[in-house]
Amino acid sequence: MAGLVTANLLTAAPAAPSAFAARSTRRAARTAVRVQAAGAKMLEAPNYIDTVPDSLLRPGIDDPDSMRGKFERMIRGVQDQVCAAIEEADGGGTFRLDAWTRPSGGGGITRVMQEGNVWEKAGVAVSVVYGSMPAESYRVAVGKDIPFEKDDRVPFFAAGVSSVMHPWNPHCPTMHFNYRYFETEEWKGVPGQWWFGGGTDITPCYVNEEDMRHFHGTYKARPPAGSAAASRCRWLWYDKMKLACDDYFLIPHRGETRGMGGIFFDDLNDRDKDAIFALCSDCAAHIAESYVPIINKHKRDPYSPRQKEWQQLRRGRYVEFNLVYDRGTIFGLKTGGRIESILMSLPLTAGWRYDYQVDPQGPEAKFLHCVRNAR
Amino acid sequence: MAGLVTANLLTAAPAAPSAFAARSTRRAARTAVRVQAAGAKMLEAPNYIDTVPDSLLRPGIDDPDSMRGKFERMIRGVQDQVCAAIEEADGGGTFRLDAWTRPSGGGGITRVMQEGNVWEKAGVAVSVVYGSMPAESYRVAVGKDIPFEKDDRVPFFAAGVSSVMHPWNPHCPTMHFNYRYFETEEWKGVPGQWWFGGGTDITPCYVNEEDMRHFHGTYKARPPAGSAAASRCRWLWYDKMKLACDDYFLIPHRGETRGMGGIFFDDLNDRDKDAIFALCSDCAAHIAESYVPIINKHKRDPYSPRQKEWQQLRRGRYVEFNLVYDRGTIFGLKTGGRIESILMSLPLTAGWRYDYQVDPQGPEAKFLHCVRNAR
Repeated sequence: MAGLVTANLLTAAPAAPSAFAARSTRRAARTAVRVQAAGAKMLEAPNYIDTVPDSLLRPGIDDPDSMRGKFERMIRGVQDQVCAAIEEADGGGTFRLDAWTRPSGGGGITRVMQEGNVWEKAGVAVSVVYGSMPAESYRVAVGKDIPFEKDDRVPFFAAGVSSVMHPWNPHCPTMHFNYRYFETEEWKGVPGQWWFGGGTDITPCYVNEEDMRHFHGTYKARPPAGSAAASRCRWLWYDKMKLACDDYFLIPHRGETRGMGGIFFDDLNDRDKDAIFALCSDCAAHIAESYVPIINKHKRDPYSPRQKEWQQLRRGRYVEFNLVYDRGTIFGLKTGGRIESILMSLPLTAGWRYDYQVDPQGPEAKFLHCVRNAR
Repeated sequence: MAGLVTANLLTAAPAAPSAFAARSTRRAARTAVRVQAAGAKMLEAPNYIDTVPDSLLRPGIDDPDSMRGKFERMIRGVQDQVCAAIEEADGGGTFRLDAWTRPSGGGGITRVMQEGNVWEKAGVAVSVVYGSMPAESYRVAVGKDIPFEKDDRVPFFAAGVSSVMHPWNPHCPTMHFNYRYFETEEWKGVPGQWWFGGGTDITPCYVNEEDMRHFHGTYKARPPAGSAAASRCRWLWYDKMKLACDDYFLIPHRGETRGMGGIFFDDLNDRDKDAIFALCSDCAAHIAESYVPIINKHKRDPYSPRQKEWQQLRRGRYVEFNLVYDRGTIFGLKTGGRIESILMSLPLTAGWRYDYQVDPQGPEAKFLHCVRNAR
């Protein structure tokens, strides 16, 4: 998803129309939001394609052995592996595939399973984006006083994989992951900038300590002696990545985290590029292992109408986070990303009940205690 | 709802963290968003009360005969009238009442009917807010070069009534209205500013020309000779208020309006205060008349599972507008308004289906044509 990939640099900050302003001014301000979203250039309309090319990079321009090429191959591999694991666990549902390219380079591959046996909606989207950002944003981001002209723009490249899976059964958690790589071109003598971001997090409706030990344990596990450096890095950084996850997936107006955490990192560029790439790959390689066993354990659990209702309300919270706070989603919506790919993350069904009260001794109260006191 | 009332002045413009910024900086920026939302002061926690006082104004400070008093009486009357009309049409459901005050003045009365016979969720909320805004925002709004100190704040008063009604039957439209009055205190020699805003709009799932003629016709109707000036004003301004409504309730990322329009006005202070108050009162007095007959006509219409599914997807669009674009909702969420009152507007049930395709010859396509080409 274009949004999730690029949003780290270009945060959507809507123009703030004054209440005293004339209507025409406010209308102009709203149009500006629609078109620019903090100076981001609207993406070109996609051309849908039947056959997915080996690479979405610009042929003859981008080196397939560069990090751009390596990252694209990694995330496309993750998309294939995760979709295969999910289809197997679902035992019937299949992912459809939509692919497109854009005239000036890049494209996307969105795979969605809807109304499967186990998942009501599961999507995994890969995107490769060539865009440009306003020079002012770039200068602030780099923190160097680079002289520039008013309308200067800095070209960037972004690639990422993003996914959300919503099961039917309230005892089966929702899972989300996103791994992304961002690069700017060399500009006015300043070398190109780059960084990585990513994470995998889980959102159950009930507290199941064993499930959470399995999920978090997958990322926290000390790798066996002789393992790759990336696995040791993932293990060493687990606590830091877990805190960052709780921090990012907070719903401030509810005073709750969206779910029960996972790992999250962003703006990572403080060491060798290949080492960070290996960390991303290592984390992404654990997605199915951390999630699918929990689903297989619970996919046949019986549940009551009350439990289903509770799930719907938690889905409502998921929607609140994604539409109000998720930087990637908001950016994508306001810059002309492919809407169906961006909002693939929203559940097939959700609900909002006025002033819903839970039994203080019940499992819903236990859940609320957890998401209000992330540990 | 506090949010809808005050948001016209204090538009939420979240801080834009840089992607290159250290995590601590970004966390601080997010905390700032949480606490400040464009400099708005967090509202104090409400004290729930069993008996609603005759007035939510500050006793002995605010003159009951001032516009503050008149406006509060008007909106409380509208709340009573609309709830009574809705209960009658529902034929079984009743509105519960939650009321509160805040330590330094003001309060709210939220009335919600949930799972009635006709409406799955219907809410009407009144709020009276005493707050303060940053001097910088005020100066920009007023357009005068008023000298001020960094932390200066300008006190304001806001009162409003806000409502959303979601029926079960896909042939019964959702309806929303909001009428509000805003006032700042005299500050540094600049006289207090004030204005009114409001509107009523309708969101069906299908096109029914007769229903729309009834709804819009109620506001467009030429008043009989000898009618009050406010009714003539409402009639004369109908076209302008209709355009403003289509403009405000646009979902840019979908290229669709949220519904099929209505009337909308904001920042109204260009004539005698009492004349504008009379216009607000006149518009608000037509709410039940414009809406309830449509419900009574359709509340027993049969509908198919496909029509219900379509309604759920349109509800999803409603959620998208409210959480992504509605200034009042976003402001309320980020400034500590009463969450249950702010999100009372969200439907009991909603859905998002990936890449939903409608029959190009069917009534869903006709509906989409309408909301993509507002007239």
